[in-house]
Amino acid sequence: MGDPAGIGPETIVRAWRAQYDKPCCRPLVIGHPEVLARAARQFEPSLTVEAIDDPADARASRDLLPCLAACAAEAAEVPPAVIDRRGGQAAYDALVAAARLALAGKIDALTTAPLHKSALHLAGHHYPGHTELLAELCGVDRFAMMLFLGPGGPVRSPHGLAIVHVTLHMSLRDALDAVQTPAILTKIRLVDEVMRRLSGVAPRIGVCALNPHAGEEGLFGDEESSIIRPAVEQALAEGFNAVGPLPADTLIARACQGEFDAVVAMYHDQGHIAIKLLAMHRAVNVTLGLPIVRTSVAHGTAFDLAWQGRSETSGILAALDVAARLSRPAGQ
Amino acid sequence: MGDPAGIGPETIVRAWRAQYDKPCCRPLVIGHPEVLARAARQFEPSLTVEAIDDPADARASRDLLPCLAACAAEAAEVPPAVIDRRGGQAAYDALVAAARLALAGKIDALTTAPLHKSALHLAGHHYPGHTELLAELCGVDRFAMMLFLGPGGPVRSPHGLAIVHVTLHMSLRDALDAVQTPAILTKIRLVDEVMRRLSGVAPRIGVCALNPHAGEEGLFGDEESSIIRPAVEQALAEGFNAVGPLPADTLIARACQGEFDAVVAMYHDQGHIAIKLLAMHRAVNVTLGLPIVRTSVAHGTAFDLAWQGRSETSGILAALDVAARLSRPAGQ
Repeated sequence: MGDPAGIGPETIVRAWRAQYDKPCCRPLVIGHPEVLARAARQFEPSLTVEAIDDPADARASRDLLPCLAACAAEAAEVPPAVIDRRGGQAAYDALVAAARLALAGKIDALTTAPLHKSALHLAGHHYPGHTELLAELCGVDRFAMMLFLGPGGPVRSPHGLAIVHVTLHMSLRDALDAVQTPAILTKIRLVDEVMRRLSGVAPRIGVCALNPHAGEEGLFGDEESSIIRPAVEQALAEGFNAVGPLPADTLIARACQGEFDAVVAMYHDQGHIAIKLLAMHRAVNVTLGLPIVRTSVAHGTAFDLAWQGRSETSGILAALDVAARLSRPAGQ
Repeated sequence: MGDPAGIGPETIVRAWRAQYDKPCCRPLVIGHPEVLARAARQFEPSLTVEAIDDPADARASRDLLPCLAACAAEAAEVPPAVIDRRGGQAAYDALVAAARLALAGKIDALTTAPLHKSALHLAGHHYPGHTELLAELCGVDRFAMMLFLGPGGPVRSPHGLAIVHVTLHMSLRDALDAVQTPAILTKIRLVDEVMRRLSGVAPRIGVCALNPHAGEEGLFGDEESSIIRPAVEQALAEGFNAVGPLPADTLIARACQGEFDAVVAMYHDQGHIAIKLLAMHRAVNVTLGLPIVRTSVAHGTAFDLAWQGRSETSGILAALDVAARLSRPAGQ
């Protein structure tokens, strides 16, 4: 459900029927039934929200949205478009419940609506975002955030374009210290695995440089030769189809034109600038390295639009589709 | 002319006639006449190259390319597509001659073809690129590199999209230290001035954050509050139409959609990833802060394509057009 003050609830109810136009999964919502029911009354009046206590009870249809109650009652009191401790707590509760259900095998995959980080922090949960919280819930320390765009539009590869981030929610100064050979190698392995699951073939992986012009042969920094190149060489030795470090600006443009299926970005904005420019709404955020399948919309709570019925639904539909494809047994 | 081993000479001769389809200036080439003549023989055989010694002698036409001799004879011996000291020297000599002619008022503007930095360095000229060398030739220390895309295609503002860089050719680690309030303020002033000259109206300027999510209210770095915000506040006090710091990924996407005419990027890749993704070939590089008008193509020497007659000509044509518009007397 995400933060009840944001665009999550309305986006879910407004996307509900579109999902049935090309069904990819058997959906249920994990959150607060009254919040979803309010969104349905406002934006999709013929949709009925049914509160359930167990995913096995979900009887989803074009007209019925099953909602597993996972949040405290106070979640329904959060006003639209404000940073509120109770909104942060509700998003947290829904996420924790969903992750536990996924870990227990009671749901096959998890797609999240946006939370607001300041609200999350007000509720006492000091995580930079969904990704890090899920990694902790799942007990993993090798994980990564991938942004994915399916093929079409500006993305020429038939397998889509994936950008995985070596570092994520930290200052750029901290990111410089966190860009290390083992972290880069982990991300190459993770993106290779997920892209094989999505497309059935080994992805062509381009690895970004950290410095402009890939350091211009050492003139603008030496991380390319001392940190990134050793990771690419090790990846090649392990059989991955990896190239780099290449200047990030030209690499990402070349990837978009179909030369690569995946890009390893060194820091948040290196990947996010590209993806948001290419397709702010239809990008899918995929968490790699978890024992569960988790995708998300790539946008935020958008308080400036919240509870107005104007949010884009393409992102959550794409996120559901990718989650469903990643949950299929191998070979299907 | 740029480096004779790169795609400069062929791009110039191949763009020569297209320039006359929509003439914006009276062009002459500054470089090595024999190199240009060789490019013309290979790729535009009916074009004649005439060596001249003074810009006043230029009698350019659709069929005649005047070339002011500015390089040593050895420039004609540089083989295609190699890093060669003589190629770096030739690019340097052409640039210095052109800058001196511009400073002397003998030419109105200067558009440069690409040089190869390693060749420049082999020739003993230790500059990170054209921009820094021109700043030194002109004796200025407040300058900036702007990338510009005219309106159309993905750029929705009728005035185009300008991205100016606070730091440029240095390691990302050094860029973090060089992002300071006065440097940001200088870039806001420079981009405002050039966009007024190009479009006739005050640009709407968005200023990028340095850290992801604009530092997420201090959680991921404090440069937004301590360094960037004071620059924006001072700019507002001086009457500029500036907003920020805003998260770079969403700001650039919003600018592209028409919400801003200019973006102030904190480091090289922040701006270059966006521009190369939007339009790798038609982007124009404009040096701000010089007493002369200087534009350039935004691509490099492209040795993989050099002397094959396949280079894009849209970039040099756009660079000529912007140079001509910036050379017009105010009000025309």
